[in-house]
Amino acid sequence: MEYKYMKLALEEAKKSILIDDVPVGAVIVKDNKVIAKAYNKKECSKIATDHAEILAIKKACKKMNTWRLEECTIYVTLEPCLMCYGAILQARIPKIVYSTPSPKYGFTNYINKTLKNTNKIVVARGIYEEKSQKMLKEFFGDKRN
Amino acid sequence: MEYKYMKLALEEAKKSILIDDVPVGAVIVKDNKVIAKAYNKKECSKIATDHAEILAIKKACKKMNTWRLEECTIYVTLEPCLMCYGAILQARIPKIVYSTPSPKYGFTNYINKTLKNTNKIVVARGIYEEKSQKMLKEFFGDKRN
Repeated sequence: MEYKYMKLALEEAKKSILIDDVPVGAVIVKDNKVIAKAYNKKECSKIATDHAEILAIKKACKKMNTWRLEECTIYVTLEPCLMCYGAILQARIPKIVYSTPSPKYGFTNYINKTLKNTNKIVVARGIYEEKSQKMLKEFFGDKRN
Repeated sequence: MEYKYMKLALEEAKKSILIDDVPVGAVIVKDNKVIAKAYNKKECSKIATDHAEILAIKKACKKMNTWRLEECTIYVTLEPCLMCYGAILQARIPKIVYSTPSPKYGFTNYINKTLKNTNKIVVARGIYEEKSQKMLKEFFGDKRN
């Protein structure tokens, strides 16, 4: 199941490439049903908060008619940044599954480990890691050329 | 000048009370001009990301037609949470002025100090601290009654 949802998140990430944005996709799932999908469009929309996770959380809240996404899992192709991790906390999403780590901007670089554990968010990583990494590398490679 | 902008942020916070939301207001200033104002409406809108800071950043990005708010200062009546601190980082806002600390949810509780310093965001606090605190206490006091 996890592969299925991450594959959907990768499909979302591809949409970012079409608008010349860093490819990141997110999918929110509850009871084995996809309730929201979104992709990063920060450069295109020129809105600093338009990361895939934030946009997916907003859609999920609207769909569920509540800001409490307590039984959901968020699948994201890149390790969430601090803002998105904070948004996941705000929405009380108890589980994050991310594909590839973000060594510079990923939340695990920022959060105090002691406190991180008290948040009790389950974090899993590594699904389709190569695919996600390749997509990002190709995007930034094309940018440089 | 800082008092003037925090006073405006307090005026915004009062709008949250009108919709029965936790009173928090934010104002973004550039070159001594207010470019965005917003207030917390998370409970009312049922969107997990609808904190005052996020809404103000979105408005400022739209107004400036860029996600880079590099010469701005954000004034906020309550210490930003992790999500909002992350959004301030994403928008490259170099200065945060907050009124009253948030001992449980404020970002200073979460961020690894070593890394925090490398972000180089200037953080000031304490302007109208009593007023902000009183507003929050009254709000939660009324809620309990």
